[in-house]
Amino acid sequence: MKKQKPTIQDVADMAEVSIATVSRIINNKGNIKPHTLERVQMAMRELNFTPKTSSMLSESENRTILVCVPNLDNPFYSPVLNGIHRCAHNTNYHILILETQDRYTRSEDFEELIRNNPIAGMVILSSMPQQKILENLSFRCPTVMCSEYAENYDQVSYVSIDDSAASKKAVEYLISTGCEKIGLVNTNLSFKYARHREKGYLQTLRQRGLPVNPDWIIHLSTTDYTLAFSNITHMLSLKDRPDAIFATSDVYGVAAINAAHELGLRVPEDVSVIGFDNIDLSIMCVPTLTTIEQPCFQIGYQSCELLIEKITNHTTPSKQILLNTELIVRNSTLLPKRGNPN
Amino acid sequence: MKKQKPTIQDVADMAEVSIATVSRIINNKGNIKPHTLERVQMAMRELNFTPKTSSMLSESENRTILVCVPNLDNPFYSPVLNGIHRCAHNTNYHILILETQDRYTRSEDFEELIRNNPIAGMVILSSMPQQKILENLSFRCPTVMCSEYAENYDQVSYVSIDDSAASKKAVEYLISTGCEKIGLVNTNLSFKYARHREKGYLQTLRQRGLPVNPDWIIHLSTTDYTLAFSNITHMLSLKDRPDAIFATSDVYGVAAINAAHELGLRVPEDVSVIGFDNIDLSIMCVPTLTTIEQPCFQIGYQSCELLIEKITNHTTPSKQILLNTELIVRNSTLLPKRGNPN
Repeated sequence: MKKQKPTIQDVADMAEVSIATVSRIINNKGNIKPHTLERVQMAMRELNFTPKTSSMLSESENRTILVCVPNLDNPFYSPVLNGIHRCAHNTNYHILILETQDRYTRSEDFEELIRNNPIAGMVILSSMPQQKILENLSFRCPTVMCSEYAENYDQVSYVSIDDSAASKKAVEYLISTGCEKIGLVNTNLSFKYARHREKGYLQTLRQRGLPVNPDWIIHLSTTDYTLAFSNITHMLSLKDRPDAIFATSDVYGVAAINAAHELGLRVPEDVSVIGFDNIDLSIMCVPTLTTIEQPCFQIGYQSCELLIEKITNHTTPSKQILLNTELIVRNSTLLPKRGNPN
Repeated sequence: MKKQKPTIQDVADMAEVSIATVSRIINNKGNIKPHTLERVQMAMRELNFTPKTSSMLSESENRTILVCVPNLDNPFYSPVLNGIHRCAHNTNYHILILETQDRYTRSEDFEELIRNNPIAGMVILSSMPQQKILENLSFRCPTVMCSEYAENYDQVSYVSIDDSAASKKAVEYLISTGCEKIGLVNTNLSFKYARHREKGYLQTLRQRGLPVNPDWIIHLSTTDYTLAFSNITHMLSLKDRPDAIFATSDVYGVAAINAAHELGLRVPEDVSVIGFDNIDLSIMCVPTLTTIEQPCFQIGYQSCELLIEKITNHTTPSKQILLNTELIVRNSTLLPKRGNPN
C-alpha cells in the first residue's frame, strides 16, 4: 500500500499547534514565536511534508529560479552564471539574479521579495553569515548553494571546490620555484572560500617551515581593483617585502603585478604572483598570470542541475559535490628549481 | 471639477470592442488579432488609461524592479547596475536582473516571466530589436530604457549618452596625434550604441578626408576578449595595417593593445589605441588605455529615478536624457602634434 502524503493536519498534530498557525507559518503571515516556528519546521521535516505556499505556483506554472550573487563587480561570477543559465534554459527555466551585497543579510530582507515573487527554487552564491537564514530559505523553497556553502550543514546541496587544497597547490608551486617569503592577498573572511584559501596558505607555510608574517597578509573588503592596488603597493614598499604573492582572485593578482611594476619591481624575477579563478583577466595582463583554474561554468551548471532535481522531486536527498581545480602556469612565476621534488 | 479617471468601458467604447476583449488584452489571456490589439492600445494611450493587470499588485505591495541586461560578461554593465541598485535601495525597491542574451527577443519570451513575477516596473539595458516588443512591455508596466534606447520612439523615457559625438571626440584625438589610418573594433550593429559609434567614426574620417578601409573595420558578435584578440591580431597582420584603433569598449581596447604586443608592435608608437567606457580594465593594462568615460553609475541611477517617478505617477511624461562623456588620455596614445588645432 502506498504511504499516504502527510497533511497540514498531521503537521499541526505533531507540533501541537493549530492548523491556522501552520498555515500562517507556511504563508509567512503574522508574527510567530521562534520556538513555535522551530517546532513546526521540525514536524514538517520529520513528516517530509512539502508546504504549498500561496506564493508557490504549481510546478508547471512556475519556472523561475532566483540566483543570489554577492557582487556582480567580481568577474568570477559571470562564467558561473553562464553555467546556471545554460542549464536553466536547456530545461525551460527563467533565471532572475539578485545581487545581495550587504543588503540581504537577514531572513526578513528576503521575505518581502520571496513573498511577492513566486519562485520555483534558489541557487545561492552569496555567503550566508547565519546558518539560520539558509535553513529558513531552504524551508521556503528548494535551495542549492553554489561555490559558497555552509560548513557543517549538509541539509542543503552544494557544488564547490576544495579551496584549501587548491591554495596549497598554489603555495607549493611558489615554494618549488625558490620563493620563501610568500604574502597573501585575500578578501574578507565572511566567505567560506576566503577562510579555506587562507587555511591552505597558512598550513603550507607552517609545514614547510616558512615565515608567517602578518605584514604580508592583506584582507580587503571588496574585489575592487584600485583598493587592492594601493594596499599591495604598500605591502611591496615594506623594507622586508615578500618575494611572492598568492592572490585569492585574478583581480587581486593583476593588482599585484601592476603594483610591482609601479614600484619598479620585475615580475616574476623580483616578485612572483599567482592568482585564482582563471578568468579572462589572467591572460589580459602583462605578464600573463599564473593562476588556479576553477571550473566556473561547470560549478554553475551542476548546481542548477541539482536544484532542478530538487524542484522536480522534493524528496531527492542533498548532495555535496567538490569539483577539481588545476594550476595553470603562465609568466608571472619562475620555473621550478631543478632537483626540487615538486 | 476634477477630471474623472477613464474606465475599461471608455477604452472598450473608443476601440469599438467588448469589455471582455480589453480585459483579455490587459491580462494577456488568449489570442487577440494584431489590429484589435493595436486599436485597444491606442485607445488606452489616448485616454491615458492605466491598466491594472492581475499580475500587478498595488504599489505598496509591489516593490520589485526588473532590470534587463544583455550580457553580464560585459564589465560595462556592472557600474551601471551599481547606480540602479543605489537608487532602488534608497527608495526601498528590490532589483531583480534578467540576462536577456539572445534568449529574450520576442514579446512571448517575456510574457510567462512577467505573468508569474509581479513587477512594479522595468529598466531595459538590452537592445530591443523590434520596437513592437518595447511598446508591448511598456504597455504592461512602467518601463525606462538605460544606455540603449529605441531611436524615433519617444514614448519610453531613457538615459543614455550621445555615442556619435563621443566617438567623434575619440577619432579627432587620434587624428590630432598624427594618426591617419584609423581602424574600428565594434560589436554587432543590433545595439544602438554600436550603430551610433560607427556613424561618428565614419563621419569624422570622411570630414577629415581620411581613408575608410573595410579591412580595418571589425564587427564582433560578443564582447569576448579572446575573440577580439584573434580578430585584431589578424587585422594588425595585414600588409597595409592601421596606425590606430578606435575600440568601442575597453575590453576590445585591451585586446588591441595585447594583439599589437603579440606581433611585436609598440603601443602607442606603432599603433595607438582608444577604448570606450573607462571601466577598471582601462587602468589594469600596460600601457594604460586612453578611453571615453561614460558616467556609468549616473546613467543607471538616473534611469532608475525616472522609472520610480513613473511608477509613483503613471501620467509623468516621458523624458530623454543624454549625459556627458569625456576623453581620458592615458598612455596608449601619442601626444597631440604641436600646431594642430585640436
